[in-house]
Amino acid sequence: MSLTILDATLDGQCVGLRVEAEQITALGPDVQPANGDDVIDGAGMALVAPLVNGHTHAAMTLMRGFGDDMPLMEWLQDRIWPTEAKLTDDDVYWGTRLACVEMIRTGTVRFWDMYWHPEAVARAVEDAGIRASVALPLIDGLDPSKSDALRAQAERTLDALAGTSDRVTPTLGPHAIYTVSEKSLRWVAELSEERGLAVHIHLSETEGEVHDCVAAHGVRPAMYLDDIGALTPSTVLAHGVWLDDSELALIGERGATIVTNPVSNLKLAVGGVFPYGKARQHGIPVGLGTDGAASNNALDMLQDVKHLALMQKHAARDPAAMPASEAWAVATGERAPLLGQSGRIAAGEPADFLLVRADAPELTPGDLTANLVYATAGSVVDTTVVAGRVLMRGGQIGNEAEAREGAIASARRLGVIE
Amino acid sequence: MSLTILDATLDGQCVGLRVEAEQITALGPDVQPANGDDVIDGAGMALVAPLVNGHTHAAMTLMRGFGDDMPLMEWLQDRIWPTEAKLTDDDVYWGTRLACVEMIRTGTVRFWDMYWHPEAVARAVEDAGIRASVALPLIDGLDPSKSDALRAQAERTLDALAGTSDRVTPTLGPHAIYTVSEKSLRWVAELSEERGLAVHIHLSETEGEVHDCVAAHGVRPAMYLDDIGALTPSTVLAHGVWLDDSELALIGERGATIVTNPVSNLKLAVGGVFPYGKARQHGIPVGLGTDGAASNNALDMLQDVKHLALMQKHAARDPAAMPASEAWAVATGERAPLLGQSGRIAAGEPADFLLVRADAPELTPGDLTANLVYATAGSVVDTTVVAGRVLMRGGQIGNEAEAREGAIASARRLGVIE
Repeated sequence: MSLTILDATLDGQCVGLRVEAEQITALGPDVQPANGDDVIDGAGMALVAPLVNGHTHAAMTLMRGFGDDMPLMEWLQDRIWPTEAKLTDDDVYWGTRLACVEMIRTGTVRFWDMYWHPEAVARAVEDAGIRASVALPLIDGLDPSKSDALRAQAERTLDALAGTSDRVTPTLGPHAIYTVSEKSLRWVAELSEERGLAVHIHLSETEGEVHDCVAAHGVRPAMYLDDIGALTPSTVLAHGVWLDDSELALIGERGATIVTNPVSNLKLAVGGVFPYGKARQHGIPVGLGTDGAASNNALDMLQDVKHLALMQKHAARDPAAMPASEAWAVATGERAPLLGQSGRIAAGEPADFLLVRADAPELTPGDLTANLVYATAGSVVDTTVVAGRVLMRGGQIGNEAEAREGAIASARRLGVIE
Repeated sequence: MSLTILDATLDGQCVGLRVEAEQITALGPDVQPANGDDVIDGAGMALVAPLVNGHTHAAMTLMRGFGDDMPLMEWLQDRIWPTEAKLTDDDVYWGTRLACVEMIRTGTVRFWDMYWHPEAVARAVEDAGIRASVALPLIDGLDPSKSDALRAQAERTLDALAGTSDRVTPTLGPHAIYTVSEKSLRWVAELSEERGLAVHIHLSETEGEVHDCVAAHGVRPAMYLDDIGALTPSTVLAHGVWLDDSELALIGERGATIVTNPVSNLKLAVGGVFPYGKARQHGIPVGLGTDGAASNNALDMLQDVKHLALMQKHAARDPAAMPASEAWAVATGERAPLLGQSGRIAAGEPADFLLVRADAPELTPGDLTANLVYATAGSVVDTTVVAGRVLMRGGQIGNEAEAREGAIASARRLGVIE
């Protein structure tokens, strides 16, 4: 069945939009539905490009609020790691389903995930109807003797992910330079090139990571990764808070993408602000991520895009830094092609788009993009369409209660809640 | 007619709540409605204390997004001031009505306002059903020859406000130490004492203000205000970003209240972060404000409370700084008695409370207070009750469309939108 949207506004014009076979096939003032189309009345609503969450650990919704306001290492050692050790496939499935509900609800149509039991993540993505780049976290504890076994596990996971869903893209997820040996990072880079896979890695989140890298390897994190051959146009670097100018120049030359996570960086108090202006001067593609719900604690990109813009203004001490249109381009993926969303609504594009309630009080008056960035939050989204399927309509998502109940049962089993 | 809420949760317990004559008269597991009560089924909802917006310029909703991302003085001189010069009573009425819709929608039941045409603000407050402390901005351009006329205008405004609404509290609003002469600040302090009125003033928002004060008066802003006699338990200081330790000690001794506006401070890139921890060490009552929609651009306290907590963690470089419970106490007014909301739901308290949708995906799982601070936004509010009147039920506010349409007509007339 095809889908037609009628009487929505796009850039101030009243338009219709028709979807066939997961693509936008027509867009303009004269679009009419064909017989049998599912028709959505878009009156009072604006067509808006959807968000892409460039870095998260979706199933960590299960640990939302578990150890808030604790020092980082205490939080990891006493709360997160012991809980993660108990995770089953089933837990990750339900945690991810809940995350998908939250993301669909707030206009995110694709997320870049790095989490345990990735086959369960992929099943949840398939069932939820969303898109995701899915990675198993690769960790060998810097022990090269564990590297071969890790590679075998990584390859098994890639094989297992291959057939799960058209909307799942398998990726490689070496956790970080302080948890993965050089030997493993080398085969990750090889495998990425051989199979055309993106590499998703945490880099330069804390100042301590930079100091440790310089002490261990004599160079800063981006140079270390480059020496290994793992800084390429297929690399997604999460965080990048402490990258210096020489590293940004190198990353720009290599064509790697950075995903900034301003809310998580603030909540975990890493102390720095991602140097967006300099990164763009070096031509680096940049996306936005929420990080996991345990360190945010929301997955609402329409909230995080405001933090992004405000923190850039604050750090630059300049209210003109990071205007709303720029923040919006980052959040929709327009500034980072590797993330897989164009930020455009046009004939020929994949049928991923939102309808937002243009009559929401906080969208009155003013420019829609500025209001999306500064004035509203995810609740303004009325309808979410992914690959031509309507995942939310009128704020209602099918199977939302099921996802919530499954996640609550898992959180209870894990001892996160009573 | 009285009001009864049944089967809501409060601190994890299932309770009923009964309201008579604007007060909570009963609260507990066995509360039953009387014949003729308006009864709200609270199943699946949590009873939550409402928010108090300690500093705003409500009618600036009319200028939402007007001159975003501009340098401060250019924004004021080219956009805000010329527009404000054209404002009529009618414009301020509709801008404030729209602000009230947004605040009621997001759980704020009282706001501290400083804006032109305050009688129109008071009319809007009365019609919207919310509570407000309303001040005319007092500005004499540092010219003492204008002081007497300003006093006469201030007194006329106080008289005019007196009869407008039971829910309006007239206050005195000297704009700032750099716009009001010492002569005028002195009579403001006298009038405050004579009539028992709160004084609402911007203080120490920018570093330039501090430098200018020291240059002009030889002392920092808090000392200058104290020398004039205007730093008292009735004083509300908006911003306070650049207060140093000696000023915080003095403010603590005098018993004045500070309202921090983290989002506005970030958006206008003032460069500093309000020193919350030190302020509390000196015993200073602290509240939270959004500032006007032109510099935020939302009036959603449930978004701003997250910025508050995150910026305190960031500035302290400590994830344990400003835990969720503390941020919540600030946002609900519990940490600032002068602001007029207790942050408590109990028999004998005024009947101001919220019902929030406990089954929202982003409130799953975890602690309700932490989730309200970190995970959700204003849209989680289902029902807003002020002085026993249900202003929003099931997310619906009576006369919302009227407020929106009135504000759009005013914004158009003012040239903010086409």
